[in-house]
Amino acid sequence: MNNAEFIIQYAVKAGIEVCFANPGTTEMPLVNALDKVAGMRAVLGLFEGVCTGAADGYARMAGKPAMTLLHLGPGFANGVANLHNARRARVPMFNVVGEHASWHLPFDPLLAMDIEALAGSVSDWHRTVKTPGNFSRDTKEAVARAINGQIATLIAPNDLQWAECAETTDSSEAIVSDGDRSGIDEKWIGQAAAMLKTEKRCALILGGRALSEKGLMTAARIKTRTGCDLFYDTFPARLEQGAGYPEIHRIPYLPEMAIEALKPYEGILCLGTRAPVAFFGYEGLPSIFINDSQESLVMERGDTAIVDAFSMLADAVCAPDEPDSRVLSASRRPDIPSGRLDGSKAGAVLAALQPENAIVVEEAITNSLAYHALINGCPQFTLLALTGGSIGQGPPCATGAAMACPDRPVIDFQADGSAMYTIQSLWTQAREGLNVTTLICSNRSYDILKLEMARSGNLSPGVNANRMTDLSGIDWVKLGRSHGVPSVTVDACEDMALALEKALAEEGPHLIELAL
Amino acid sequence: MNNAEFIIQYAVKAGIEVCFANPGTTEMPLVNALDKVAGMRAVLGLFEGVCTGAADGYARMAGKPAMTLLHLGPGFANGVANLHNARRARVPMFNVVGEHASWHLPFDPLLAMDIEALAGSVSDWHRTVKTPGNFSRDTKEAVARAINGQIATLIAPNDLQWAECAETTDSSEAIVSDGDRSGIDEKWIGQAAAMLKTEKRCALILGGRALSEKGLMTAARIKTRTGCDLFYDTFPARLEQGAGYPEIHRIPYLPEMAIEALKPYEGILCLGTRAPVAFFGYEGLPSIFINDSQESLVMERGDTAIVDAFSMLADAVCAPDEPDSRVLSASRRPDIPSGRLDGSKAGAVLAALQPENAIVVEEAITNSLAYHALINGCPQFTLLALTGGSIGQGPPCATGAAMACPDRPVIDFQADGSAMYTIQSLWTQAREGLNVTTLICSNRSYDILKLEMARSGNLSPGVNANRMTDLSGIDWVKLGRSHGVPSVTVDACEDMALALEKALAEEGPHLIELAL
Repeated sequence: MNNAEFIIQYAVKAGIEVCFANPGTTEMPLVNALDKVAGMRAVLGLFEGVCTGAADGYARMAGKPAMTLLHLGPGFANGVANLHNARRARVPMFNVVGEHASWHLPFDPLLAMDIEALAGSVSDWHRTVKTPGNFSRDTKEAVARAINGQIATLIAPNDLQWAECAETTDSSEAIVSDGDRSGIDEKWIGQAAAMLKTEKRCALILGGRALSEKGLMTAARIKTRTGCDLFYDTFPARLEQGAGYPEIHRIPYLPEMAIEALKPYEGILCLGTRAPVAFFGYEGLPSIFINDSQESLVMERGDTAIVDAFSMLADAVCAPDEPDSRVLSASRRPDIPSGRLDGSKAGAVLAALQPENAIVVEEAITNSLAYHALINGCPQFTLLALTGGSIGQGPPCATGAAMACPDRPVIDFQADGSAMYTIQSLWTQAREGLNVTTLICSNRSYDILKLEMARSGNLSPGVNANRMTDLSGIDWVKLGRSHGVPSVTVDACEDMALALEKALAEEGPHLIELAL
Repeated sequence: MNNAEFIIQYAVKAGIEVCFANPGTTEMPLVNALDKVAGMRAVLGLFEGVCTGAADGYARMAGKPAMTLLHLGPGFANGVANLHNARRARVPMFNVVGEHASWHLPFDPLLAMDIEALAGSVSDWHRTVKTPGNFSRDTKEAVARAINGQIATLIAPNDLQWAECAETTDSSEAIVSDGDRSGIDEKWIGQAAAMLKTEKRCALILGGRALSEKGLMTAARIKTRTGCDLFYDTFPARLEQGAGYPEIHRIPYLPEMAIEALKPYEGILCLGTRAPVAFFGYEGLPSIFINDSQESLVMERGDTAIVDAFSMLADAVCAPDEPDSRVLSASRRPDIPSGRLDGSKAGAVLAALQPENAIVVEEAITNSLAYHALINGCPQFTLLALTGGSIGQGPPCATGAAMACPDRPVIDFQADGSAMYTIQSLWTQAREGLNVTTLICSNRSYDILKLEMARSGNLSPGVNANRMTDLSGIDWVKLGRSHGVPSVTVDACEDMALALEKALAEEGPHLIELAL
């Protein structure tokens, strides 16, 4: 067995089942190994940002890492933006990047670049294998780190991939997640419980795994007991949501609105997330939305122990075992609005029709504002958001989520400008027959930039500034179909409803342009 | 005048006229400045790889830098792959990247990442502005470096962009290229001349500026006098070519063929390039194509002084002032082949029809082999190649070349798999009305990988390996039209000829799928 085969075999043994790949010549031993070793499904992305974004979406839904296989420094560089989103989502990933043969690299072949500098910018751990003998050791460390929640990037010189492996996976111990070894801060729980038990008006801001089913039901228990209000991160990695979950509100994107939303609270607890930070800094507005007069406590940890800590907090406030039904969202859907679509109406149509158990990837940017206010009463579903703010996350994330959950409908509620960053994802959706419906919010504009331009005081943009926000000229129906995805355009609410129902009823990917 | 306005004004004063941009909120002062200050044309790319690739193509043709404007770390990361190609092409570029407000960055907002690590991987120079007072100094250094041939990346915190500038460009000295201050190694010229004057069979391998008109005509003079043969780099940044230029051959891509091509020569001179290095390392084959029994001399420098050194060499071998017409390529074109297209025939149709003064961007990968053997006798034109091997260079490079030379027809001879990396370039071509004809070599496959797979000994790829090379399912006509580019598909030589002639006769961009 050569080292490349060892990588695949060890990853499979650790439970890694899918490899999102765009390999090249330096990864050829690994490509060969993908067939020699059973158990890994290789999925081609036509651009590496598709691969890393898909691995992110897969990990959010599968709760375990996917592998990526990327070609040298440029291939990794193309994946960096969505690795940044994955890092902010705190998902695990096992990246393998080829490197030139160790004896060839000193001659600085054209494709050579500083892969480690790139890998270091987005990985929790990265290493270049230096000798054939280190290969199995480094592979095991990388896989173990990925299985335990990290983004691990292994850089594998081509000649060392070919070299005979010093061990077999049979002789290697099984890899299991080491879970949450570090303890829970009981003092913090005592302080948090004390805050909740006062007469202060309190809010819980939840992020990360605190937004899991168990986390949310724990929040409901605490709300039952203490009457606190619940918020979720503006851009949650994964939010379980819908009727039966507690009423919970999104922290608004704009600082003024976020500060206003949190102003009523004397005490604020952040669980699984930090104190909310403004997406951008604006002169005269604070970076942190919690002010000095508010008492706040933060337990940011991203591992599953946050859920245990949350349960301990519920017990510490003597919350009932089951939440009162009055703190849970009742089943309620908006009516399907009528007439010409706009962003708000598009969100309402989606909230009115999205099926139970759907996975909604939300990168609708300015068009998602209304939608978030409508989802508490939907049938239960999962929402995945733009964790790192690096646009072009939606289409690949939806691709990966659909790979992880082939039996669940995936809906990508997607801004047009952002979609253009990783539009090649549609091809992978078609190739793999994935049940993804992409709703393109086609306002033919970087509307968020127009908003920010106005905020910056530029109320009458000139020629150049206007050209920086105008996206007109994209034919979305042709674009979707060119990638093999059945595509239609609609501009009325009723037509969106019909198209969405039809897309959801059929197997495979669909694209619906919402002409706003 | 604020610092953002100073950047634009100083760049304009230095002769920078075009900014390929995809800005965000942190670059808003610069977006506003693009209108407040006259003289800079802002061109939007729907993905940053389009912007950096276009700036590369622009610089190759204009002989001076373009500016790019990119949004934070993720925006820069998306541009890295084509910055890598630009670095290998040794072109100048002035990149400006926004950064979070300096007072906001310590709070680690979601989009924050290590921009300097990314910038350092592909820039000759990079710096984050640290204080408002440093802004004009750092801007001037960045622009001066770009004007003098470097890739300079200025990272500009948002609050410092807004701050009042400490000086005006009026008080700043004019920026001029400082040319080639370092001397020419006369001893090297003596040695090289001595080699050429022996009875040894000699080859000149030319790269960089040695492939300019003056460089090539100097090569012709030397060939007239010494009978040496001429080669060009496998992937030249810019090659002037056609009838009237000396006969010159491409260094083959595959090591076996390159070694064979150079084997007859006892003496080899490399001018404007290094001794040729294999694209990849293959077990049992050398990294360098020149062997120990061959005498070789290298003058690699990338600046314009290489042309002066080359002239001195011509004088040192007593070359005539004008080359003998027999060393120059006669005007000759292949006949237009007939029947079903393949890669070779596509190259022949192109060579048969490309107009005088055309700019041909060549990223046809496996389909370009025949083409390079046919171009010596074409009407004079310019060829731009994939300098860094990072695919997705062709469409943006063609975009930038067309911006630099609006009166010249640009033809992008383009592999399908590579085109998918930066396909958004088509939109910019349509938006700007650029005269680019894209010829998609549609073999629905990463054929180069199939070749490399066979070379690696895998002659019967399995399911996963086959899925890594199969690109079927892209409708190129719909894809081109979806970006606003008139598009057709052809599968016969005669039809390609008709479509190419029609595309070249019409204004604006066109796409022709060559169904191979």
